[in-house]
Amino acid sequence: MRRLALVFSLAAVATVAAATALAAVKPETAIHYRQSVYTMIGWNFAPMAQMVRGKAPFDQAAFARHAERVAFLAPQLLEGFPAGSGSGAPTEAKPEIWSDRAGFEEKMEALVKESRALADVAKGGEEAAMKAQFGKTAETCKACHDDYREED
Amino acid sequence: MRRLALVFSLAAVATVAAATALAAVKPETAIHYRQSVYTMIGWNFAPMAQMVRGKAPFDQAAFARHAERVAFLAPQLLEGFPAGSGSGAPTEAKPEIWSDRAGFEEKMEALVKESRALADVAKGGEEAAMKAQFGKTAETCKACHDDYREED
Repeated sequence: MRRLALVFSLAAVATVAAATALAAVKPETAIHYRQSVYTMIGWNFAPMAQMVRGKAPFDQAAFARHAERVAFLAPQLLEGFPAGSGSGAPTEAKPEIWSDRAGFEEKMEALVKESRALADVAKGGEEAAMKAQFGKTAETCKACHDDYREED
Repeated sequence: MRRLALVFSLAAVATVAAATALAAVKPETAIHYRQSVYTMIGWNFAPMAQMVRGKAPFDQAAFARHAERVAFLAPQLLEGFPAGSGSGAPTEAKPEIWSDRAGFEEKMEALVKESRALADVAKGGEEAAMKAQFGKTAETCKACHDDYREED
């Protein structure tokens, strides 16, 4: 009982306002969540971009670590776009995400696939192949943003 | 050249303002990043807590997936607390994070260890063991918050 009480209070302490499998997700919670996933992807994308652009020394181990993280994060985006989460907090998500769901999910799947390929290629350590696959992955970001994100 | 130009522009499109291995991280960027990691951890912690509390049906596969995500995310927190990122944006991080770095890193390491153990135990699928290890993991959250976070 003591342990259970602790878990109860810890859940409160952690200010876990997130969704559960059963409870409906609040739109603002989903928006905050998906923006967090994008922030983490960006955090890991940036150092790879710097290496590809020659702005930072090529570091295979660091590149591979960042690529693995992006590949792990990408499949966690989709659950951040439940029905009804098109508004409720500031968001750049276009209504087409929900009105053209199949198209949106196809573009998400492209990111998942290419970022996984990037992580796999990065393990091999061949710089040219890593840079080429980074470009392919970045193209999947742009393709989705073009159609489904309100750019500033 | 075309590919490289694309990568340049994509980096801009993605509004990647994150850190690189060489460039200094802006405090607000680090703060935004680490809060995103915590948000993702909370998103995955919540459904596990619901199961542990009996508020949602026990679902071993879902529990294991969330546990694996937390275990993957936990080791990505520390880089969000670089020197000088104690202010610059709203943050609950206490100055002790930097003045007592060894103590802070020890508590971070406890989260990394216990969340890894949780993911491993969850693969086994034994409900009682999973709930017990969830409690241990939650305790590492609380232990760190007690010392290093300004609670609301």
